[in-house]
Amino acid sequence: MNQSDFNSLEDGLDGDTLHEECGVFGILGHPDASTLTALGLHALQHRGQEAAGIVSFDGQQFHTEKHMGLVGDHYTDPVTLAKLPGTVAIGHTRYSTTGEVALRNVQPLFAELEEGGIAIAHNGNFTNGLTLRRQIIATGAICQSTSDTEVVLHLIARSRHSSTADRFIDAIRQMEGGYSMLAMTRTKLIAARDPIGIRPLVMGELDGKPIFCSETCALDIIGAKFIRDVENGEVIICEIQPDGSITVDARKPAKPQPERLCLFEYVYFARPDSVVGGRNVYMTRKNMGMNLAREAPVEGDVVVPVPDGGTPAALGYAQQSGIPFEYGIIRNHYVGRTFIEPTQQIRAFGVKLKHSANRAMIEGKRVVLVDDSIVRGTTSLKIVQMIRDAGASEVHIRVASPMIFHPDFYGIDTPDADKLLANQYADVNAMAKYIGADSLAFLSIDGLYKAVGGAPRNPERPQFTDHYFTGDYPTRLLDREGEKVGRKVSMLASNG
Amino acid sequence: MNQSDFNSLEDGLDGDTLHEECGVFGILGHPDASTLTALGLHALQHRGQEAAGIVSFDGQQFHTEKHMGLVGDHYTDPVTLAKLPGTVAIGHTRYSTTGEVALRNVQPLFAELEEGGIAIAHNGNFTNGLTLRRQIIATGAICQSTSDTEVVLHLIARSRHSSTADRFIDAIRQMEGGYSMLAMTRTKLIAARDPIGIRPLVMGELDGKPIFCSETCALDIIGAKFIRDVENGEVIICEIQPDGSITVDARKPAKPQPERLCLFEYVYFARPDSVVGGRNVYMTRKNMGMNLAREAPVEGDVVVPVPDGGTPAALGYAQQSGIPFEYGIIRNHYVGRTFIEPTQQIRAFGVKLKHSANRAMIEGKRVVLVDDSIVRGTTSLKIVQMIRDAGASEVHIRVASPMIFHPDFYGIDTPDADKLLANQYADVNAMAKYIGADSLAFLSIDGLYKAVGGAPRNPERPQFTDHYFTGDYPTRLLDREGEKVGRKVSMLASNG
Amino acid sequence: MNQSDFNSLEDGLDGDTLHEECGVFGILGHPDASTLTALGLHALQHRGQEAAGIVSFDGQQFHTEKHMGLVGDHYTDPVTLAKLPGTVAIGHTRYSTTGEVALRNVQPLFAELEEGGIAIAHNGNFTNGLTLRRQIIATGAICQSTSDTEVVLHLIARSRHSSTADRFIDAIRQMEGGYSMLAMTRTKLIAARDPIGIRPLVMGELDGKPIFCSETCALDIIGAKFIRDVENGEVIICEIQPDGSITVDARKPAKPQPERLCLFEYVYFARPDSVVGGRNVYMTRKNMGMNLAREAPVEGDVVVPVPDGGTPAALGYAQQSGIPFEYGIIRNHYVGRTFIEPTQQIRAFGVKLKHSANRAMIEGKRVVLVDDSIVRGTTSLKIVQMIRDAGASEVHIRVASPMIFHPDFYGIDTPDADKLLANQYADVNAMAKYIGADSLAFLSIDGLYKAVGGAPRNPERPQFTDHYFTGDYPTRLLDREGEKVGRKVSMLASNG
Amino acid sequence: MNQSDFNSLEDGLDGDTLHEECGVFGILGHPDASTLTALGLHALQHRGQEAAGIVSFDGQQFHTEKHMGLVGDHYTDPVTLAKLPGTVAIGHTRYSTTGEVALRNVQPLFAELEEGGIAIAHNGNFTNGLTLRRQIIATGAICQSTSDTEVVLHLIARSRHSSTADRFIDAIRQMEGGYSMLAMTRTKLIAARDPIGIRPLVMGELDGKPIFCSETCALDIIGAKFIRDVENGEVIICEIQPDGSITVDARKPAKPQPERLCLFEYVYFARPDSVVGGRNVYMTRKNMGMNLAREAPVEGDVVVPVPDGGTPAALGYAQQSGIPFEYGIIRNHYVGRTFIEPTQQIRAFGVKLKHSANRAMIEGKRVVLVDDSIVRGTTSLKIVQMIRDAGASEVHIRVASPMIFHPDFYGIDTPDADKLLANQYADVNAMAKYIGADSLAFLSIDGLYKAVGGAPRNPERPQFTDHYFTGDYPTRLLDREGEKVGRKVSMLASNG
Repeated sequence: MNQSDFNSLEDGLDGDTLHEECGVFGILGHPDASTLTALGLHALQHRGQEAAGIVSFDGQQFHTEKHMGLVGDHYTDPVTLAKLPGTVAIGHTRYSTTGEVALRNVQPLFAELEEGGIAIAHNGNFTNGLTLRRQIIATGAICQSTSDTEVVLHLIARSRHSSTADRFIDAIRQMEGGYSMLAMTRTKLIAARDPIGIRPLVMGELDGKPIFCSETCALDIIGAKFIRDVENGEVIICEIQPDGSITVDARKPAKPQPERLCLFEYVYFARPDSVVGGRNVYMTRKNMGMNLAREAPVEGDVVVPVPDGGTPAALGYAQQSGIPFEYGIIRNHYVGRTFIEPTQQIRAFGVKLKHSANRAMIEGKRVVLVDDSIVRGTTSLKIVQMIRDAGASEVHIRVASPMIFHPDFYGIDTPDADKLLANQYADVNAMAKYIGADSLAFLSIDGLYKAVGGAPRNPERPQFTDHYFTGDYPTRLLDREGEKVGRKVSMLASNG
Repeated sequence: MNQSDFNSLEDGLDGDTLHEECGVFGILGHPDASTLTALGLHALQHRGQEAAGIVSFDGQQFHTEKHMGLVGDHYTDPVTLAKLPGTVAIGHTRYSTTGEVALRNVQPLFAELEEGGIAIAHNGNFTNGLTLRRQIIATGAICQSTSDTEVVLHLIARSRHSSTADRFIDAIRQMEGGYSMLAMTRTKLIAARDPIGIRPLVMGELDGKPIFCSETCALDIIGAKFIRDVENGEVIICEIQPDGSITVDARKPAKPQPERLCLFEYVYFARPDSVVGGRNVYMTRKNMGMNLAREAPVEGDVVVPVPDGGTPAALGYAQQSGIPFEYGIIRNHYVGRTFIEPTQQIRAFGVKLKHSANRAMIEGKRVVLVDDSIVRGTTSLKIVQMIRDAGASEVHIRVASPMIFHPDFYGIDTPDADKLLANQYADVNAMAKYIGADSLAFLSIDGLYKAVGGAPRNPERPQFTDHYFTGDYPTRLLDREGEKVGRKVSMLASNG
Repeated sequence: MNQSDFNSLEDGLDGDTLHEECGVFGILGHPDASTLTALGLHALQHRGQEAAGIVSFDGQQFHTEKHMGLVGDHYTDPVTLAKLPGTVAIGHTRYSTTGEVALRNVQPLFAELEEGGIAIAHNGNFTNGLTLRRQIIATGAICQSTSDTEVVLHLIARSRHSSTADRFIDAIRQMEGGYSMLAMTRTKLIAARDPIGIRPLVMGELDGKPIFCSETCALDIIGAKFIRDVENGEVIICEIQPDGSITVDARKPAKPQPERLCLFEYVYFARPDSVVGGRNVYMTRKNMGMNLAREAPVEGDVVVPVPDGGTPAALGYAQQSGIPFEYGIIRNHYVGRTFIEPTQQIRAFGVKLKHSANRAMIEGKRVVLVDDSIVRGTTSLKIVQMIRDAGASEVHIRVASPMIFHPDFYGIDTPDADKLLANQYADVNAMAKYIGADSLAFLSIDGLYKAVGGAPRNPERPQFTDHYFTGDYPTRLLDREGEKVGRKVSMLASNG
Repeated sequence: MNQSDFNSLEDGLDGDTLHEECGVFGILGHPDASTLTALGLHALQHRGQEAAGIVSFDGQQFHTEKHMGLVGDHYTDPVTLAKLPGTVAIGHTRYSTTGEVALRNVQPLFAELEEGGIAIAHNGNFTNGLTLRRQIIATGAICQSTSDTEVVLHLIARSRHSSTADRFIDAIRQMEGGYSMLAMTRTKLIAARDPIGIRPLVMGELDGKPIFCSETCALDIIGAKFIRDVENGEVIICEIQPDGSITVDARKPAKPQPERLCLFEYVYFARPDSVVGGRNVYMTRKNMGMNLAREAPVEGDVVVPVPDGGTPAALGYAQQSGIPFEYGIIRNHYVGRTFIEPTQQIRAFGVKLKHSANRAMIEGKRVVLVDDSIVRGTTSLKIVQMIRDAGASEVHIRVASPMIFHPDFYGIDTPDADKLLANQYADVNAMAKYIGADSLAFLSIDGLYKAVGGAPRNPERPQFTDHYFTGDYPTRLLDREGEKVGRKVSMLASNG
């Protein structure tokens, strides 16, 4: 599985990838607020490529730009940036899971409150969003988007507290699930992370001005300094004072709980150069490959990464096993836009549109393919075929994470459970046979825990969120229980 | 003044035209609902050219399309119409007065209520819209558009009545101003007209299915039968019953008042072939020209209409006076889109981009120019200059409506009062001098009343809405009184 | 038949209009050359709406812009005009007859010659263009466009003369047909008209700088002075001298022949305010209507023009006959772009998308419909039906030109001969029956000649080009004789 | 230096990359000709990303599509492919060196000859193109593009030979330089390679139908079989016979010379999985890295590739030296389109928009950066700075090719000689200082020869084209000698 810039191709052709919902970025008090936000979102582009939005406030008025497509397609030219003046800005880049893809659903969402405007953006998902949405509509509110983020706006608007910060806290206390959220008003930038910290969120600083963003790579691109992680359950309120100074007020409104970061941030989502929860992601991936080599050794002539997601783990596997690391698969970087809707004939070329076997490294060799994860197995099947066509004598697949059995409800787009490879076959041998590999092995859950955190999984109090592997959901799933009722909403299909 | 298809040019160059806010069309129970709505909106295009929207319901889901530009630019191709399936549809074509021009403000507006979705579209303006908006926000609602139409949705959502029809009536009883409104739900099409019927709204029928639209010309284009005017203060609720039959329920929730249709519908807005309030508009305009010839005769060689708005009145003036009617001004029909933002150099060519003098009809002649109305006089000035440059020996302007002194608050976009020609000069002679005409005369208010309704103005109980001429506003103007407070809202400038 | 801004609709729906191929404009030595050219082309937009091009020379380099669509869609914004710097410019607006519609066929065409670049643009058609094209290709030349204008470039390039002016004359002496042509080099603007002057071309002056354009209306819009017609068979070479002065050199390379201007310029193509061949076009059209009233009187209650083409003739008919002139058909000015490719369902609404009957002027009346010409009769049929549906007691059609029997080969796009109404029915009564009119009459050829030139047709030496009515082609038709061979060329279908 | 998909960014920001002009693909007699051509061009996209074109012939007519942008942006959807029917097709993907970027310059170019149409496409450059262009214009030809490829068309058109194949050979015998060329007619596909074979061109086969393309990777993507290289100086004419069979006629019209493939194909241009001149490109690059490790060892903690171009050489360097290979630089795959014209502020972020340092692999370490080549050094400078900012204790640069001193004239876009790093500094130490590296070393010319061909450079008869390193141009440079005269042509700046 690859951390792909071509998710549209992948969706159109294979759909064999998990997608992160979003990345967020916000800055307060900086004269280049929207330019820095655009750059930050560009660095977070791997977290969502379908659409991006930025809201800024210029002292008089809020400004918003929302566009389908990449940040670099819309937010870096002088015309667009000139439409986003001001010293406060938040931005959002999105791969949609909840709600259809329409501009009115693209975040940040904005609302006019009695005390002024507020914009919010978040990464994650609310497990009680639909339930709250129904309750709110029942009491006379109007929902204009199909995004569950709008629910937060309604809760803020309805809160009986007087300050915006208190209203915000009042609102998020009602939300369940996994989220990292930013809010901005005329003078404030607010950051919040869910009680167990499923999604990452970090605080940085540039020229003395506070920044919040999903990953440290968004700080690095603008040369900002990393301050600290926003803690699980924490709300940090930054405010420009009349004298121009900025105050920072950190609160913990929720009952303290241990943090449980999502393991998939390490396995696949986060950028390798980011530091998530204090750990360099690239190193954790190399560790996964090393542990995999220890757990599932194999006789091979060459270790070949499935680009690009499998590369660090493959390097770890090669270093640990002593088998040479080689680029046996070459990636085509130039996939264009109409590959999104190719003809049936072109669609049939599948993975070859993105990858090609480097025959000289493959022919006559026992190939150890290392990938980061396997979701449905459809892409793995095609890649194995491609490697065999290039003359490999044996193909062994080593996967640097455990088998995936369960869907996610915290902002990762997972296929239905019955589409997951692990649920379709009785055991790993049957899976290997389906994929066409001579052998197949997955990293153990303890192997993964050790690669990331140094210790095996503590079954009493797991250190990370890992339900897709284990079924151990870290929160209740209110909406899911009432799912059938939920079908009633979201009836407006917009093509705007 | 011309009833112009080039309002954007006019705005860019002269801004010397009044604009109608909107046209509406709705149909219930017809298999071609959205195609018929597109055609109806096309026929109503003269009421607003900036944007258009259509909402349909297909039995399962609401669908919406909103686009900036002409109906014929976006709504007549197979791809777009295929996105609007279903047998219920309402549409709206808009020239924006309230709220900035952004797609999220384009009507129809849609909301998810507890009992299902509702879409509304209206022509007119609420004189207490901002006031209500502030009240609603103060109680925890979120306003996403800057359109005051959204207020109606909130009032419907908050009503304590259980049926949608009752909720709708509850909402519009709180609204003041001039409006003709359509609403649609899964099974209902509702039409309402304000208590004194400032804006027109008619009911028609095609294949036994009810239609509501702003003017009869929208019935004519699709071959539908005119049934009757929706009466002032009336609400008509059409509903598809489970057996497929359609019930029609006409109510008068407001206290009965005499109707006062807006005179400007006759002077300028309505299409000449429409029947408004039972009167053929073209005939009323010819009558205005005839009465003008009686009230303000002049020795002339040729009567020349200022195209296209002045044409029927010019014909009436010519027939009454016996002076030959000739096309002394030729109109260029091919104004393109970038004339909206021309270079300064091209802008300087002003009216010549749209009109040219037909010298052979002008040279050496005493020209009687007939126009429908004069707003700021800036275009008149340029046209007189153009006629003089073409060699006219005398230029006399005859205006087929009274002087305009007062702004409108019922859906007509008027310049600030101090920009109106009538407020800038002491008398008609001073105006003539400014414009460069040898003489200038306006139709009297009684001359206009007689041309439209056959009788002079009844000062005790005026038969029409005429405040722009007389200052006699037919309703209170709540928002205007609290105007300064109102500046606080609408802070989100969207470029979406 | 209407002089329509909606030719695309008409093509899509009815195709019942003749189209002029082109309009041209050129200016030499003026600092605002391209802006003035854009304005001139805008005034000539009625001569072709499919595409427009401008070439300028800035002292160093030639610049070119070519765009599908209206002049005002592309040539009036600062960005585009900034791409056309310089003091020499020629422009062209086009309705394509020869060659497919592709940007590479849009004029002006440009070529690099040994002595420098040359750009040419013309209105008209060469009757030996394909023949010459074949000869040129046979001797090793490459034709990149499918436009026969390219042939002229090749002939210029191959001429053995040394001066560009002599090369140009050498080239056009080989061309047969009807054309008005402009050429520009770094220092020259050259104008040429075919030996009998089928297409119009006038010379004007602004700020002492020479201008050539198809009609006087293009001079009027920019306030330029009309100097004189370019004479039939004349070539006028204007050149900027090193001292900045401009020389004008008028030559008559061809054997003198009497002028024969195309009658359709008067009947339909030229703008009513233009002066063509010394005659105001509007007046000739009124004369046509007056002569028609004398030749084909009828008892009627109202004279109704078919807008917009029939309006001047209808006014003439009404004035001569004493029957009141009324707007019985209202035109919708807002036809959008997707009406070009509407759904079948919308297409079925046909003329109603552009016209509607003004019932109050029609109902119960004997209507005399006046149109400028009838080509295939399909639109007439629909308009008569519309008038009858509006309640007319009788419908009489009076056409202000003779029946059309023969195709044109000089730049007018005519349907195949067997599609022409006049060739499909035995006599005028059969045509009236097909169209559904109570009576039908056409202006006689002498009636038309008298309306335009004051005298009847001189059969020995006809004063005008009139072959579409009479079959009397004023030149030989070389290509037509070799038509089958001609099919071989133009095999490249470009979608660029 | 990176083999970049972001050349537009690189141009806009750094311009520190060499660009290949083109890739070509052609197929004869296959029912899916244009789909296969689109796929082949997609695989060759690394050879040029600015524009692509395809011409097909369907038995009746030639069809052409040309678009700016990626193959996958325009050529894979059903609508576009449907416009390219037929069984013969050639395609071209281009990075422009000669002639401005305008659609009329995008290849394939097409011409109508007496015996029918011909389309040509080539990769490379003619060193006598301008000289021939001037001669051709002097004899009365018209050049419509500014591409020197058009010269070939003129020579073909003017050839006195009767068969197209002979005309083609006649034409290319007059051309000097480096080129791999494809031509297609209604029934033929012709391939030609320059006398010393500077640019690569291979022959393949799918379903028994012949294919020619720039690299073997274009065969691999469609599952076609590699047949052989087109030899230097060879012309291969494939023709569909009336019975449907295809004949292949290989000729060697030029005097036999030894082959001298361009070394930069191995260093940078060709895709790593391609086999060029019988050698796997990836292996030659690894060899370069190994030889570099032998020639220029350094004490280091980590070998870091400059992505993506430096990766194979870095792996070779690491394997040879025993220093661990690590991803110390992470590449952002999501560069959007407006990064092409970013604001000055965003432009200032330079390489960070594409790369970021992976601090955990860098901090406190002695980093050996391996790149494929250094052109101007501006990017190297920024990358070293980025690595230092990430905490490297030492930065050593190892470049897997020799210093570049001389411009190319065979299809590689090189900066002016005085912009090349090697010409700006006295020695490698001065260069290292400028770049900010602790040490800098380049692979020797013999080291490169050995890596590619196994033997050191034979000074008497060099086995490869290597003038950029050595100044030894393999052909005369006719245009260059007459360069000043050449400035006269190409004066038409097109914005089409």
